[in-house]
Formats: sequence, C-alpha cells, structure tokens
Amino acid sequence: MKVLVVGGVAGGASTAARIRRLDEQAEVIIFERGPHVSFSNCSLPFHLSGIVPTSEKLILMDPVQFKKKYNLAARVSQEVVAINRQNKSITVKHVMTGETYEESYDKLVLSPGAHPTLPNVDGIKSSHVFTVRNVVDIEKLQGYVQLAAVENIAVIGGGFIGIEVAENLRKAGKNVTVVQRSNQIMASYDLDMVQIMHKELLDHGVALEAGVALTKIEEGKVHLDSGKVIAADAVVVAIGVTPETHLAVDAGLELGITGAIKVDGNYVTSDDSIYAVGDAIEVYHRILHKPVRLALAGPAQKQARAAADHMYGITNRNKGVIGSSSIRIFDYNCAATGINEKEAKEAGMQVDSVYVIAPDKVGLMPSSNPLHFKLVYEVPTGKILGAQAIGKGNADKRIDVIATLITMDGTLEDLKDLELSYSPMYGTAKDVVNMAALVATNILYGRFKQVHITDVRPLFEQGATFLDVREVKEFENGHIKNAINIPLSELRDRMAEVPTDRPVYVHCRSAQRSYNAVMALKNSGFTNVYNVSGSFLGICLTEYYTDVRDGREPIVTKYNFK
Amino acid sequence: MKVLVVGGVAGGASTAARIRRLDEQAEVIIFERGPHVSFSNCSLPFHLSGIVPTSEKLILMDPVQFKKKYNLAARVSQEVVAINRQNKSITVKHVMTGETYEESYDKLVLSPGAHPTLPNVDGIKSSHVFTVRNVVDIEKLQGYVQLAAVENIAVIGGGFIGIEVAENLRKAGKNVTVVQRSNQIMASYDLDMVQIMHKELLDHGVALEAGVALTKIEEGKVHLDSGKVIAADAVVVAIGVTPETHLAVDAGLELGITGAIKVDGNYVTSDDSIYAVGDAIEVYHRILHKPVRLALAGPAQKQARAAADHMYGITNRNKGVIGSSSIRIFDYNCAATGINEKEAKEAGMQVDSVYVIAPDKVGLMPSSNPLHFKLVYEVPTGKILGAQAIGKGNADKRIDVIATLITMDGTLEDLKDLELSYSPMYGTAKDVVNMAALVATNILYGRFKQVHITDVRPLFEQGATFLDVREVKEFENGHIKNAINIPLSELRDRMAEVPTDRPVYVHCRSAQRSYNAVMALKNSGFTNVYNVSGSFLGICLTEYYTDVRDGREPIVTKYNFK
Repeated sequence: MKVLVVGGVAGGASTAARIRRLDEQAEVIIFERGPHVSFSNCSLPFHLSGIVPTSEKLILMDPVQFKKKYNLAARVSQEVVAINRQNKSITVKHVMTGETYEESYDKLVLSPGAHPTLPNVDGIKSSHVFTVRNVVDIEKLQGYVQLAAVENIAVIGGGFIGIEVAENLRKAGKNVTVVQRSNQIMASYDLDMVQIMHKELLDHGVALEAGVALTKIEEGKVHLDSGKVIAADAVVVAIGVTPETHLAVDAGLELGITGAIKVDGNYVTSDDSIYAVGDAIEVYHRILHKPVRLALAGPAQKQARAAADHMYGITNRNKGVIGSSSIRIFDYNCAATGINEKEAKEAGMQVDSVYVIAPDKVGLMPSSNPLHFKLVYEVPTGKILGAQAIGKGNADKRIDVIATLITMDGTLEDLKDLELSYSPMYGTAKDVVNMAALVATNILYGRFKQVHITDVRPLFEQGATFLDVREVKEFENGHIKNAINIPLSELRDRMAEVPTDRPVYVHCRSAQRSYNAVMALKNSGFTNVYNVSGSFLGICLTEYYTDVRDGREPIVTKYNFK
Repeated sequence: MKVLVVGGVAGGASTAARIRRLDEQAEVIIFERGPHVSFSNCSLPFHLSGIVPTSEKLILMDPVQFKKKYNLAARVSQEVVAINRQNKSITVKHVMTGETYEESYDKLVLSPGAHPTLPNVDGIKSSHVFTVRNVVDIEKLQGYVQLAAVENIAVIGGGFIGIEVAENLRKAGKNVTVVQRSNQIMASYDLDMVQIMHKELLDHGVALEAGVALTKIEEGKVHLDSGKVIAADAVVVAIGVTPETHLAVDAGLELGITGAIKVDGNYVTSDDSIYAVGDAIEVYHRILHKPVRLALAGPAQKQARAAADHMYGITNRNKGVIGSSSIRIFDYNCAATGINEKEAKEAGMQVDSVYVIAPDKVGLMPSSNPLHFKLVYEVPTGKILGAQAIGKGNADKRIDVIATLITMDGTLEDLKDLELSYSPMYGTAKDVVNMAALVATNILYGRFKQVHITDVRPLFEQGATFLDVREVKEFENGHIKNAINIPLSELRDRMAEVPTDRPVYVHCRSAQRSYNAVMALKNSGFTNVYNVSGSFLGICLTEYYTDVRDGREPIVTKYNFK
C-alpha cells in the first residue's frame, strides 16, 4: 500500500505513524508546504513570553527522525498543488524552485489544516500585520516585536489564539489591546461567565475593545468602527480560521454545509481513496446533531487514528464531537465542554442552567479558591448539555468529568451522585460538580425557583426587591443598592420583615446560605421567593467589567471579589 | 416530625441540614458525645504540620451557629446510650455529670461513625499512644508531640490517616517510622503502583517497615515481629476503623455481613423508623456486587441527603459505591477509583491492566512531569473496573474521569475516544487516559502482547532477553543488566540482531517507542515479542524501594527516575 499524506502536524503525522504501526511494508510519504513537518501548534503563543524559550523547541520532529523512528518519508517545502483522481496521483511543487512532479497513491490523506481568516480591511497586507499558524509565523512575529522594539500591539480576535497571544505579549511587557467584534471574547463561554475573563484581562493591563470591528490598519495604529483609534506598532490577526479546501475543491471532492471538506464517519471523502482529517473537515456534533467545524488538536489525533484504521479494515465507532477545551488566562484556569446556554437556545433546545460558586478545595487548605461553575442542561429531561468552569484552581478537572458524562449520555441524576476522588488538598467531599447537579435537580423538580445572574441588573432597574442574607459586616462591605439585609442567622425571627406583596430575590455571597433562606421562606408559606444563582460574588464579577468600561453606574455600593 | 440524629460531622449534620431545607417545622436534634458537632475530619492530620495552624480552625460550626442558621439543636457532650424502639425514644447521658434522660423520636438517624481499631498488643493503653478520630484526638497528639519535645514517632498503619499523619509529622521535623502489616501501604493501589509511594516516603526520610506487625509498645520504643525495635517517643495507631454498632446491636437492629449496620437502598435499617448513614453502615459495591464498608466523607454526605429525602417521600436512585479516593504524599498526587487488579483477581474476575507513563502536560510547558497511570479492565468485555494515577501533576483529574466512566458503565472504547479539555498548560492532545485505553484495546484485540512490570524481575531471573530500544546515550545512563540495545532509530536496519529463538521483551523509557518497535517487529514476522508495560522508568520506580530496603541486587545497572 502506498499512502500519501498532505500536511503534517497533529492530523497528518498521526495518520502516518498509525499506518506504520499497522503495516511495516506500507510506503508512506508526508508532504508539507512549510519547513516543519511536526511542531506543537498549541504551544506557539507561549514563545512570545519566553515560556517556550526558543522557537526550535516548538519543533517536535524533523524528517530525519521521521525516517529513522517510523520509516516515514517527510518531504518539507513541497506543496501539493493538485490531486489527479483519475490516475490516483498528486502534483507536487518544490516551494523553492517551482519545479513540479507527480506522485501516485493507493490512498491519499488530506490534512491541510486551516489558514487564519483575514478581514477585508485596508492595510491588512502591511508588513506589521501578523498571523499565528506555524513556527515560521511565530518567529516572524517575535522577531518583529523584539527587533523593532514594538511597544503597542493590537490583537484582532478574542478566541484561543488571540487571548493566548495577548497574554504572552503582555507578560513580555507590551501594551496589548484585544479587539473583538462581538460583545465577548471566547465564544464557547456564556457572557455571564466570560465577564470574569474580561475582568482578568483588565486587571492585568490588557485593554479589551469588545463589540467593535476593525476598519483600517495604518502604520502605528488601527481604526475601529466605534471611531476609536488604537496605537499599534504591530497587529496580530486571529479572528478565526478558514479550512484549506482548494485542493479538495479543485479535485471535485464534496464540501459540507459548513464549507469544510465533507467526510463520512470513517473520514473518507466523497472519493473512496481519499481520506481527510483535522481542521479542514467538518465533523458531526453529538449534541447539536449537525455538522460543525472544530479546529482542535485532540479530535484531529483521534480522526487520524480512525482514518488509518479504516484503511486496514479496523472499525471505529464514531460518537461525534462535543467540543471540550481549556485555556489559562493569567491567574484563571478556564475550561468548557459541550454547548453553552446561548448555543443551546439558538439551536431551539429547551434548556436551563445553574451557576454555582464553591471552594475548589477545603477552605482550610492552602490556596483554596472559589470555583465558578455553570452547568447547562435540557428541560425536562435533565440531560447534561455542557458546562463552563473558571477559577484559580482545577477547572479542567471538573470539565473533564462533565465531558465524560455528556459522552455517556449522563443526566443531572448521574452527576449529583457521582463519586469523585476527594482529599482536602484536591476538592471537597461534595464537589462543585455534584453541587451544581443538586441545585439543578432542585430547580428541575420545582423545589425552589431561581433567577440568573443576567437577570439581576434588569430586575434592579425595575426596582425589584433583593434580600441579602449575609451577615451585617459582609453587607456593609458592599451590597446591591437598596437591598434588604436580614442575615440567615436572624431570618427566622425576622420573617415578618420579608415582603409578601412582591417577588423577593434572595442572595448571599455564593448562594449557599440564600438557598437555605429560600427553602425556609418557602416552607413557611412565602411563595414568591427566588434564589439568585451566582449571588453577590457572581454579581460583582459579572458587572464589574462593563461598569468600568462604560463608566456605568454600578448596582452595588462596593464590589467585593472575595 | 421530630427527628433525632446520633452523631454530627459529615453524616449527621448533613442529614439534619437537609431535613431543615425540606421541612421548616421539623424538630431536629443532633446528639454528639464529644464537644464538637461539626469539624473537618479529613483535615485533622494537616494540623500536625501547621498547614492548619490552630485546631480551632478545624471546627466548622458550633451549636449556636447550627441553631441560628438552620434552627437545628445540637447537644454536645451528650451521649446516646440506648435506643428504646418500642416507645421510639433514646436514652441520653450527659457526659460530664452522668445524668440521663429520654428523648422521643418519630425518626431516628444513626450516624455514630467508626472508631480507630486497636491492635491487641501490650502497651496499647499507654499514655503516649494516640489515635486520630476527632479534634480532641489531634489536639492531644499535637500537644504531646510539642510539649514532650518528641523526636521519634511510630505510626502504625499505612492507610490514608497513617500516611497523612506520617507526612505532616515529618514536615514538622520528626523522625517518623510507618509500620505496615501487609507488604504495602495504601491498599487501594496495586503493589506496582504503590512502590512509587514507598520510594517517595524513603526519599523524604520517612522510614517504612512493611510486612511486619507490631508486637509490643514500651516507653520510647515499639517492638515488631521481625525482632526489630523502633525508637518511638509517641505512637499513632491508624490500622483501620471499626464501625460503631453497639447502639444498633443493643437495640436489636440487624448487622450486615461486614459487621456494619445493615441498611436498605434508602439507608433505612431493619427498623422502619431508624435510618443509618456514614462509616457505621455497609454499602453496596457497584463493581464487586456485594456489601462493603467504605469510610469516606463523600459517600456519607450523599447518604445523608438520601436518608432525609426518603423521610419526605423523595426517591433517590442508589447506584452503589465505587470507592474513589485521593491523597497527597509529599511531591506526589495520588488518586484511585474502582477496584484494583488485586481486588479484581481476588473476586475471581477475569481482568487485565495496562500501565502507561505519559507527560501530564505538553513537555514544553513549565512543570511537565510523567503521570503514572494504571487502568484495570474486564476481559473480554473491556469494561472499565478501576484506575490508579500517581504523579506530580493532576492525578485526581484523570481518576475523576475514570470514576465517571465506571459509574456510567463505560468501556475501553468509550475511554479511548473521550474528548477531554486540552491546553498545553493542562494536558496533552491525547491524554494519558485516552492513551491507556488505546494500549488496552490493542491488547484486548490481540494487536500486540505485553508483560507487566511485575513480570520483569521474575523474567530477568529466568534469563529472559530484554531489548532496550532507547538511544545509546540513554542506555548508557542505566539499563537492565544484559539487555540488548538497539535504538528504535536503528531497529529496521538491525532486525537481524533480534533473537527469534526465544521471547523478546521490548522496552524503552515509557513504552511509547517500544510499542512502535514491537509493532515493527511483529509486522516483520517476529511472533514472540512483548512490550514491557511501564518500561524502564516504571522498572526503576517499582524496583528501587525493595532493592534499598533489602539490600537486594538491582536488575538495572543504574536507576534513572527521569
């Protein structure tokens, strides 16, 4: 068998290595347009801060090593320019010389990836505009930033790459502005959760311009559609990626509804002899039940293995994708899986969510911190659809549990009873994920009612009644303006003070005490009481960024982020 | 409804709090023999090193707070001495005065816990012998250690409490010896994995006497059945716990086959009006399909909620327990879930395991370290039965994923495809848990054969042929004596050197390269080749402790732990 692979890195190199393990005799050749056949994509931004000290370290394996270790040929600086399906061959061009030649295949694997999408604005082709796709790109950006003594950098786009680039440049001492067209960075998170990230950027001196679009790039500055002009000696564009489909299109291969290469469950394209994997294809979303694009390294590696297996008759069950991811943003660890509430609602699903703040480990332990956890579930089935976790502690652990549950069709009932490993050093006996499920079942089963953190400002503006059940000292250290303060410890003696002629929205710091207060009130005959999911800590964190940005009147007398 | 609760802490206090949330009118009284109704059990050992600076911090809530926040009565220093089932009352004794009184109940909840088991040896009642069950115990131990200027301490028992006590005392500068009757500490782990913990104790100056029993305690020393005498100015006994069943037994309640209180799936005892939760009961093991005792805080809290719910007609599905746990041992994070290989074999199950060593995060990232991961699965079903993880990184995360899968009846196929959150800071695109499942499916489906790390020494002693496929420099820096060295990068040119007349056991550092080597050999016609699960790093780590302890001849020329 002779297999040609277009493109290295996660998809291509993994396919080739798997083929070799299945077939010692197969002839396998990887073609890579650039100089590096294997590098750590996801680590590229970390070179900008020096966490990855040299760009050579980003290169995982060279063609000599590929040959020696796996007996795989890797031809770098050679671009595949055409697929000739009739005679099962490809046309390859030497990037340096322009010479072309043909190479025949039994099976062809397309792993061309996706290229950074460029906005159609004046100046986009300027020499101080950069993208981050490969080692050469990051070397160019880093070289420019260092040699040109660049001080001010605009990062266009607040997704994974944009935010990681912004953070690492900030750590290198640069003045960084992130420009984001929609009203939030990191689209996998809901706005309420992402406000914590917005605040974190602000706190670390990264300027964020959200809800505005880039209109023009000039030397030393960029223009936004708000009229604002941002100083920018260098511009990094990271607004998204576009699948590399031109080879496939030219060869008449079918594309899917997302515009990416269409494959079946075994990663076979519309041509039986051609497979495709990685960022250039579309995959089936297990929760949304439709094809999506998902440019992530983990799924690419799994696709690679499945494609190689299929060539050798080995079946692979395809469960679709759910889209798990994580990112560090300065002091916060952030992770998400499945779909968020916004996506679920856009898909027309009937959903609800809970936002739970709980200690990431026992409070007595060093570095115990609040973990912010949002769980999205289907109503009335209780099926878990997604989750988002943000905190200084182990957020990715909680999300991996939810990712596992989603894949196994888990419900709130499964999650509430889940028996997770516990030691005071790593968690609490009832983990935040258990707690979220308990709260959610209470709501799903109608044991109490809640309002979401995003409801708080509208309610406040309508003059709603908030009941703050924290202790007086806590109340004095910041509270919702006009809120009534009756500490939980006094509530049973002071129930007469709780209004009955209107809805009462109850909160404390993290919604634990207010939950007890709501149940006490409800079981004492108060029918119109609501727990505020996320409570005061959540309110402060989600309100702060917009208040500061817009010079908006805060709804709290004083913020308290502890 | 009037509910009496015997015993506070995780089980009792949680039951009471849940009752209050369900029923504002219920009269609930918690009885606690000791002075503290609510404290952080699991944090007790951390007071010994000062991580928890004062013992007061261990106390979570006092009776005044219980009353104020939850309207619950908590009567401390009052011991329940009898249950009078006929008239549904209990007899309570004031610990200080000896006075008794009766209190009637509609429902009674037993949450008496378990007391430290004491070995029947001379001197066990001495004033320098301590146990660790509650805040009073830890204050006594800490007071003695500090005031008596104790230098040498023997900890009898190498379970969770024993090891945590030993570590925290060591951190306080004491000479600590752990005495363990069986040949290993931490029974939830298999011997191969636990050797890493043994080494860690050794490396941090904690002496371990495993496979020996305590025979006598004297002033300043303890005697072991090996004849050895250990200097010990203080002795901490932590060999296990015995459920507190005397109240239940005296009242004629049924005990289970484990000797703990028997309950049904709703935590109702053989008396419909009496519930029991926590360390005093036996629970049903989901994998072993039999009742077991499981003294852990997480399950206790879940039982508490379920019991309270049941009183109010709320159903709770009972999925049984799987036994997830975690512990930090100096620089290592350790976690385990389900059953280990030894337990599975003792239960007569047909199982196999893989031991995978993989980076806990991308190698380029700061503090990337090997994670040691053992996965136990059923043959031929591939059902996941348990896992153990040890490393300087995030071991508990990986175990929580497996705990979730086990609960959802997951198989190797589910695990290999699991789409977990990934960023270079937190993991690798193909996580160690995915990798373990991939290796295990390869073995289950007969794609290659392996031997376990525990087979290596016996094979070595039989003169077996080991093929080390690491590079020459790595080989020179320590290898199995008499091993053949053919680097993977040269293997295809030197296959003629690989013996065909006998089995060949192939390894590298972490079994990745050797896996490729095994496949290359197999696919080239070599039929008698085996991959060594765990490879050289695993061999060094599992051999080292016993070699040092017994002055045993190492099977390696030099250890390499990196």
